[in-house]
Amino acid sequence: MASVRIRQAEEGDCGNILKLIRELAEYEKLSDQVKISEEALRADGFGENPFYCCLVAELLPAPGEPQGQGIGSKIIKKVAEVALERGCSQLRLTVLDWNKGAMDLYKALGARDLTEAEGWHSFRFEEEAMRELAGK
Amino acid sequence: MASVRIRQAEEGDCGNILKLIRELAEYEKLSDQVKISEEALRADGFGENPFYCCLVAELLPAPGEPQGQGIGSKIIKKVAEVALERGCSQLRLTVLDWNKGAMDLYKALGARDLTEAEGWHSFRFEEEAMRELAGK
Repeated sequence: MASVRIRQAEEGDCGNILKLIRELAEYEKLSDQVKISEEALRADGFGENPFYCCLVAELLPAPGEPQGQGIGSKIIKKVAEVALERGCSQLRLTVLDWNKGAMDLYKALGARDLTEAEGWHSFRFEEEAMRELAGK
Repeated sequence: MASVRIRQAEEGDCGNILKLIRELAEYEKLSDQVKISEEALRADGFGENPFYCCLVAELLPAPGEPQGQGIGSKIIKKVAEVALERGCSQLRLTVLDWNKGAMDLYKALGARDLTEAEGWHSFRFEEEAMRELAGK
């Protein structure tokens, strides 16, 4: 199988991270919702009080073998490890209901679909609605 | 109407915050899911790199008037204000599908139900599943 190295992201990865965010959004048919810039990714993740933490999976494909197998599981396992080290007691994900592959993977790894099981709905205020609320 | 003062939470509020978390969970019929202690709330919110930020609404009821009117809207407006100040571009909430009062309020204030509109499901790994993933 392809060899995968998972490591903490560095500021210099932000260009490639944005590229992956855009590819995911394209797959999710939500490209119009990607408003973040590489500059904002750098500022938010690598300042004094980072807003996010990011892991990067580096893939070294073995010649003649299919790429990509098992990377999702490996990176989720690593996220669980880092989260436990930092004192987190839960790990949450959101997934589109037609993305059966991802849903099946998360369930197989031990996650529970809280929307299905308990009826949780996710609500979002966009920046314009926030400005209206804040009177700004 | 009752007078409301909204302020940043202090470490000494953690006992009352936990009481409110428990009251909300009871209303949501999810009391068994409240595992956090006052000690953890203090450590997570008031250490060097806080995991959360909390606002407290202090209510000074006017004699003879019903309590509670408009506090939800006021606190969401304040959250939007603080979030914008800190550079956030979205404000997200989760709500149970039978909690029509809360859903109607969030929609009236300008939020979009992403589960309904786009099909987002919320998934959760519990600590036990995380330990299994991390091999710990």
